[in-house]
Amino acid sequence: MNIQNIDLSSYPNSEKFYVDGKLFPIKVAMRKVHQYPTVKIENGKRIEYPNEDIILYDTSGPYTDSNLNVDINKGLPRMRESWVEERKDTMILDDITSEYGRMRRDDKSLDSLRFPICHKPRCAKEGKRVTQMHYARKGIITPEMEYVAIRENLDNEARGIKTYITPEFVRDEVASGRAIIASNINHPEAEPMIIGRAFSVKLNTNIGNSALSSGIEEEIAKAVWSCYWGGDTLMDLSTGDNIHETREWIIRNCPVPVGTVPIYQALEKVNGDVSKLTWDIYRDTLIEQCEQGVDYFTIHAGVLKEHAELVKKRLTGCVSRGGSIMTEWCVIHNQQSFLYEHFDEICEILNKYDVAISLGDGMRPGSINDANDEAQFLELDVLGELTMKAWSHDVQVLIEGPGHVPINKIKANMEKELKVCHEAPFYTLGPITTDIAPAYDHITSAIGAGIIGTLGTAMICYVTPKEHLSLPNLEDVREGVIAYKIAAHAADLAKGFPGAQVRDNALSKARYEFRWKDQFNLSLDPEKAKRFYLESRRDAPDADDRFCTMCGPNFCAMRISQNIVDKCQENA
Amino acid sequence: MNIQNIDLSSYPNSEKFYVDGKLFPIKVAMRKVHQYPTVKIENGKRIEYPNEDIILYDTSGPYTDSNLNVDINKGLPRMRESWVEERKDTMILDDITSEYGRMRRDDKSLDSLRFPICHKPRCAKEGKRVTQMHYARKGIITPEMEYVAIRENLDNEARGIKTYITPEFVRDEVASGRAIIASNINHPEAEPMIIGRAFSVKLNTNIGNSALSSGIEEEIAKAVWSCYWGGDTLMDLSTGDNIHETREWIIRNCPVPVGTVPIYQALEKVNGDVSKLTWDIYRDTLIEQCEQGVDYFTIHAGVLKEHAELVKKRLTGCVSRGGSIMTEWCVIHNQQSFLYEHFDEICEILNKYDVAISLGDGMRPGSINDANDEAQFLELDVLGELTMKAWSHDVQVLIEGPGHVPINKIKANMEKELKVCHEAPFYTLGPITTDIAPAYDHITSAIGAGIIGTLGTAMICYVTPKEHLSLPNLEDVREGVIAYKIAAHAADLAKGFPGAQVRDNALSKARYEFRWKDQFNLSLDPEKAKRFYLESRRDAPDADDRFCTMCGPNFCAMRISQNIVDKCQENA
Repeated sequence: MNIQNIDLSSYPNSEKFYVDGKLFPIKVAMRKVHQYPTVKIENGKRIEYPNEDIILYDTSGPYTDSNLNVDINKGLPRMRESWVEERKDTMILDDITSEYGRMRRDDKSLDSLRFPICHKPRCAKEGKRVTQMHYARKGIITPEMEYVAIRENLDNEARGIKTYITPEFVRDEVASGRAIIASNINHPEAEPMIIGRAFSVKLNTNIGNSALSSGIEEEIAKAVWSCYWGGDTLMDLSTGDNIHETREWIIRNCPVPVGTVPIYQALEKVNGDVSKLTWDIYRDTLIEQCEQGVDYFTIHAGVLKEHAELVKKRLTGCVSRGGSIMTEWCVIHNQQSFLYEHFDEICEILNKYDVAISLGDGMRPGSINDANDEAQFLELDVLGELTMKAWSHDVQVLIEGPGHVPINKIKANMEKELKVCHEAPFYTLGPITTDIAPAYDHITSAIGAGIIGTLGTAMICYVTPKEHLSLPNLEDVREGVIAYKIAAHAADLAKGFPGAQVRDNALSKARYEFRWKDQFNLSLDPEKAKRFYLESRRDAPDADDRFCTMCGPNFCAMRISQNIVDKCQENA
Repeated sequence: MNIQNIDLSSYPNSEKFYVDGKLFPIKVAMRKVHQYPTVKIENGKRIEYPNEDIILYDTSGPYTDSNLNVDINKGLPRMRESWVEERKDTMILDDITSEYGRMRRDDKSLDSLRFPICHKPRCAKEGKRVTQMHYARKGIITPEMEYVAIRENLDNEARGIKTYITPEFVRDEVASGRAIIASNINHPEAEPMIIGRAFSVKLNTNIGNSALSSGIEEEIAKAVWSCYWGGDTLMDLSTGDNIHETREWIIRNCPVPVGTVPIYQALEKVNGDVSKLTWDIYRDTLIEQCEQGVDYFTIHAGVLKEHAELVKKRLTGCVSRGGSIMTEWCVIHNQQSFLYEHFDEICEILNKYDVAISLGDGMRPGSINDANDEAQFLELDVLGELTMKAWSHDVQVLIEGPGHVPINKIKANMEKELKVCHEAPFYTLGPITTDIAPAYDHITSAIGAGIIGTLGTAMICYVTPKEHLSLPNLEDVREGVIAYKIAAHAADLAKGFPGAQVRDNALSKARYEFRWKDQFNLSLDPEKAKRFYLESRRDAPDADDRFCTMCGPNFCAMRISQNIVDKCQENA
C-alpha cells in the first residue's frame, strides 16, 4: 500500500527538532520556523537585524522529519513501547482476545487488505491497572507526563515566559480527572498529548469511510493529512467495509491518539439491524479495538431508556448516530441501555489497556431550537454519574458536548458541564451557532468553538464545510482543521495560555516589516497564504514588496506608519 | 458598459415580493422561499403536509426581481426621489458644486468611462437640515422609517411573533442617535435600511480598485455581487484611477447605502503626497461625493496630532489607511488634524445631503499585541466628543471599531464604545481574534464579529480570505459575505431578535425530513450547499435520499430518530 499523493512540504524554512527530557530519556518533537532578518537602512547603510526562530507545537509526527523515511507498510516508530515495558505491569498476549479479531485474522481473503506486520497485543497483568490516571493517583510521574509538559511549554523557559506546567502539575491534573493523556499501551506510535482546560486547546478531526465511499489508502491519506495540518487527535468513524483492517492501517501510521465509536462496528457486525445488538457483541468489539490500539472510545452510555420520550419533543430528534442507535435499541427491547448497565465492566476492560472513555452526548441538540433542552441536560447529569464511576476504576474520561447552540446559550453548557461532570475535560462539536449555513459549517461552528474554548473546553471537534451534506475530501479536511486551529488558538490567546502570543507577535512583526515570506511561513497555512498573495502579484514572485495589492503602494498604512515613526524620531 | 458575467440565479424556488406601507405608499422588498410538502406514509397512504413560505430579508435589490430588467447604463429605479421631493426642503442645483466634479465632467477624454445619464444634484434649501435624525427629532416619521420598520419585521406579525419595532420606535432610535438610516438624498436608488443595536445586525462589504488592479466593470460586478449574497451596505474604497467615474457607476446601480473614505480621493488629487493635503481639497471632495450620492463617509477626525507619539509604542503601528495618512499629515506640518479642526463645517455640509459620518478608528489595533491600548482608547474618547458635535448638527453617526482583538478583550471594546460614544451604533471590522491565519481571516474575524454582534455591535465590516494579502476577487467577496452573514445571524439569534429563528427552524425541519432541496434553498448559499451534496451523490442528482454520504444509509441518526418517534407512538 502507498500513501496517497498528498503534499507534505507546506512548511517552508522550518525544521523538526527534538527537546530532551530531564526525568526520562525522551525526545519531544517540535517545529522551529526560521526567520529572515529585518533589514534597515541607517545612515545610508543596509543593516540586518536577525530575527529569532519561532517554536511551534507540531502534530504532524515523523512524516515531516526530513531525517526519517516513513513507510506506511511498516508503520511509525514505536516510541512508547519501551516506556510501557519498563513499567513492568503489562504482558504480551499470545493471541488476540477478540473472537471477531481472530476471525478476521484467519480470513485469507483479507490478506491483500491487511497491514503487513502483526504486533502481538499487550495487556495489563492480572489485577493491574495501567492507566495514566492510575499512575498519577499513585504520585508517579510517567514519561508521557514529562513529554506533554515539555510539549505544552515549547520554548517558554528560554523566553522567560512564566508557566505553571511542570510534570508534577500534569500529574496532578491527570490524577484529579481534569485532564487526560489518551495513550493505549497498544498504540506506542502516538506522541503523548494532553487534553485539559489548563493546557492548550486541542482539536479532534474525524475521518472514516461510510458504506458509500472511501478506501483504505484514502483514509490513511486523510489521517496523515489531518495531523499534518494540526489535528491533535483523530477519530476513525468508519462504518463501511473492512473497518477492522482500515483501523489497523490507521493506528500503525497515526502519530496522534485515535478514537472510535465502537457501537458503529458492533452494528456492522449485525448487518445494521439495531435490534440484534447485544452486550456480548459490543464487549468483543471493545476488546478487539483495545488490542489494536484505539486510545479513546466514544460510548453513549448516558442515553437511557427514559430519554426516548424526550426525542419526540424535539425539532430534529436525536442527531447523534450512537445516541439514536442506543435509544432505538432501548425502545425496541423496552430495556435499559446495555452500555449503562455494563458500565463497570466496560471500565474494567479499558483500564487494562489505558483506553479513555469519551462519554458520548447522544442527546446533543441538532438544531438551534433544541439547544439546552431537557433531553440534553438530563443526559449530561447521567454523564456526571458515569464520570465518577469511570474514575473509580482509574479510567480517564472526556465529556462530549454539543452540537447546535446559539451564542447566548453556550456559557450555560460549559458551566453545567464543569459542575455536574466534576470538571472532567469537555470535548465539544463546535458548537454550531446557526443552522442556516450548510456548506459553511466549519465557520458557523468555529465561532462557537472559539467561544467555548475560551470558557474552558479542552478539546474541540472539527467540522468541515461538508458537514450535513457529505463526507469530507482532503481539501475539506484541511479547511476544517485550519478553521479549528484558529478557534483553538484564539481561545488560547483569550485564556492567556503561556506563550500563546509569541507566534502572533512574530507574524505581526513580519507583516509590519514586509517580510512576506516570514509572514507566510509563520501562518497556519503557508502554502495558501503565499498562493493568495501571488495571485495578484504574478509579476513579483519573490514576494518582498513593501505593500500588497489590497491598498497598493501609495496607501499602505503600515509603510506610512513607519514614516511616522521615523519622522517622530527625527523631530525628537 | 455591461455587467460582468455573474450568476444571479442561486436562490431557487423563491421569489421577490413587496409589502405595502400603511403610512406611506411604499413597497418594501423581501424574498419568499417556497417549500415542498412534508410527505408521510400513514396507513399505507402517501399524505402531503404543506410547508409554509419562509420570508427573508433581501439586500439584492431589483436585480433579483424577475419582473424587472436592470440595465446598468440606466441605473436602478429612483424609488426615493419622490419621497425626498415631497418633503419640500430640498432643491435641485443648476450645476454641481464641486470644482473637481465640474472638471471631470468637462473632460471629454473621460466620456467613454462616464455613466451615461447625468442627474442634477439635490441639496437642502438654505437653512434647512434634511437628515433622518433631524426629522426624527422633530417627531416626524418618514417613509424611510416606515420602510425599515416593515423590513426588519418580515412576517413576524402574521406569525404571531412579538416585535417592538414600529415606525415610532425607529423614529425614536434615530432621534436618540442609537440607530441611523444612511440615505443621501442623492442616492434615491438605495432601499432604506437601519443600523442600530435594537435591529438585526448588518454587514458592510468593501470593494474598490487600487492602483494595481480592477476596472469599472469589475467593480460594478463586485458591488452587485456583494449585495446579492447579503451585503447591507457597501464601501467603495477605490484608490486607483477614475475614482469619480467608477463611483458614479456604482452609486447609480447600488441598491444599498454606499460609503467612502474621502481622504483616499483627496490624496489621489495631490498625487499621493500627504504633505500637500489641504482642508480645501478635502472639502471639495466631500461636496463632490455628497452630490454623487454617497450615503456615509468614514472620517478619521479622531486621530490627533498628540497621538502620533503613541504609534511608536506599537508592534504594528497604525494600520488604518486614513489614520496613517492623517497622522503623517499632522507630523509633517506639526499641526492639528484639519478634520478635527473643521469638524463643525464638515457636519454643516453633510446635513444638507443627509450623509452620515462613520467616525474612523485611525488607531485601531493591527495585531493582537496592540489591542485595547492607549492609542486606541484615547482616540475613542475623541470619537465620543465628535459624536456629540455631529449630533448637534443633526448628522447621523457610526463609530468604527477594531481590528485585531483577542476574544477576552472584545467585551471591553463594546462597553467602552457605548459609554464614551453615547450609544452611537458601533461598526466593527471583525474583530480578528488571532494574527496567525492569513488566507483565513474571514474566519478569524467571523469569530470576533459573532461575539461583538451579540454584545451589541450594530454593523460588522466583512473581511475576505484575501485580507492582508491582496484585493479580493468575486469568489472572495462571496466567501467574505457569507462568513459575515453567519456572524450577523448568529448574533441575531443570540440577541433574541424577533423572528430570527424562523429560518433556522424551517431549515432544520427540512433537514430532519430529508427535504434536501428545501434545506439548500433556505440556506445562505443554496448553490454551494447543493453542489457539495451532489459531489458525492452524482448518481442521485435529484437529491431526495433519506440519508447523506456522511453517515450512509444505515447510520443516519435522523432517520433512526424518526423510527424512535414512530415506535414510541406505537407503544403509547
